[in-house]
Amino acid sequence: MRTARSPRKPRRPAAETREDILNTAEELFRTKGFTNVAMADVAAALGMSPANVFKHFHSKTHLVDAISVRHLEAMIDRLARPDDHKAPPERLLLFVEQLMESHLRDLQKSPHIFEMIVFSAGQELPCAEQYREMLIDDIAQIIDAGVESGIYHVKDSRKTAEIATMALACVLHPVLIAKEKADILATRCREVVALIDTALQNPLAK
Amino acid sequence: MRTARSPRKPRRPAAETREDILNTAEELFRTKGFTNVAMADVAAALGMSPANVFKHFHSKTHLVDAISVRHLEAMIDRLARPDDHKAPPERLLLFVEQLMESHLRDLQKSPHIFEMIVFSAGQELPCAEQYREMLIDDIAQIIDAGVESGIYHVKDSRKTAEIATMALACVLHPVLIAKEKADILATRCREVVALIDTALQNPLAK
Repeated sequence: MRTARSPRKPRRPAAETREDILNTAEELFRTKGFTNVAMADVAAALGMSPANVFKHFHSKTHLVDAISVRHLEAMIDRLARPDDHKAPPERLLLFVEQLMESHLRDLQKSPHIFEMIVFSAGQELPCAEQYREMLIDDIAQIIDAGVESGIYHVKDSRKTAEIATMALACVLHPVLIAKEKADILATRCREVVALIDTALQNPLAK
Repeated sequence: MRTARSPRKPRRPAAETREDILNTAEELFRTKGFTNVAMADVAAALGMSPANVFKHFHSKTHLVDAISVRHLEAMIDRLARPDDHKAPPERLLLFVEQLMESHLRDLQKSPHIFEMIVFSAGQELPCAEQYREMLIDDIAQIIDAGVESGIYHVKDSRKTAEIATMALACVLHPVLIAKEKADILATRCREVVALIDTALQNPLAK
C-alpha cells in the first residue's frame, strides 16, 4: 500500500474505489447511453480526478471488461446447472436455451450492454475468454455423461466441447442474437443443438 | 423521370448519381475512417446538397447496405465454385475456407468495412439476408451431391444447409473473425466443418 497523498481525506482501499467507479460508470452508461459517457464524466460524477480513474482503469475498454465480468458472473450464478437425471442431449439443449435466454434478458433490460459489446468488437476482452472457458467446461461435462451412457461417440470431450461452443456462437454471441426475433432464435437454438447432437451421436465419427 | 429543377446543369441519370455517391462515400470512409465521415461530408465532396444525397440514401445505414452489397457481389464473383469432381465433404471445406479467407482479405485490405459492420451491428441490412441466401443455396447443392453419392444422410437439404450456415457464423461472420489470428481461424474452420460433416454423415440422423 502506498501512503496517502493528501492528509485531508482518509485513504480508502483501492478495491472499494474500484467498485465505486464500476457502479458509477455503469449507472451513467445505463442512463446516458454508453457512447455519450467519457472517462472524464465518470470521474466528475465521483468527484475524482480523471487521472485517478485512469489509475484504476487504463481505458474505457478496461472498464467495459470489468463491468462485463460482473454481468457474466451474475449470469453464471443464475444458471441452474443441467439436471443430471436428464439424458445428455436434453441437458445440452436446456443448457444452451437457458444461456441464450439469459443473454437476451440482459440485453433487453440493459441496452448499454449491447453498446459496450459493439464498442469492444474486435478487441480482446479477458472476460470473453473466461466465459468461453466456462461454457466449454459445462459442455464437456454433458458430453462426458453422454459418452458414459453410450449415446455419444467422442474421443476428446474437451476438444469436442470447444468446437461445439464455436458452432453455438450463432445463438450465444450477443452481436448475433441481440436484435433477432425471439421465435426465430428459439427455433435456431433447437436446430443447431440438434445438428451438434447428431454429430456427437454418430457412431462412425473419427 | 422528373423534369430538371435547374436549367444550368443537365440532369444526370439517378443511377449514375447513386454510383458517384457510393464511390465517394467509400473513398472517404477508407481515407478518413468510417465514423469520422457524415452524410454531409459525402455531399460536400461531391458538391451536392445534403438533401440530394439523402434523396438517394435515407441514412448512413442505407449507404452502408449499398456499399456492402457491392463488396459481397464482388466477393461472390471471385469465388471459384466448388469442384464437382471432389467428394462433398472436401467441397464443403474448400467452399467455407475460401469464403473465410476472402472475408479476411477484405477486412485486412479495407478496415473501414469492419467499422461499417460494427456500426450496423443489430440493424437489419438487406445485404446480409441476400448473402445468407446465397450461402445456403451453395451449401444445399453440396449436401445434395453428398446425398446422391450416399455419403450424407439428410432429409431436407435446404433446411440442413440453413442450419449449417448458422453454425458456420463463427468462421464467416466478420465480427467473429476480423481480429482473430489466422492459424486459429484455419483450425477452427476445419473443426467446425468436420463437426457439420459428421452430423451430415450420421446414418442414424432423424
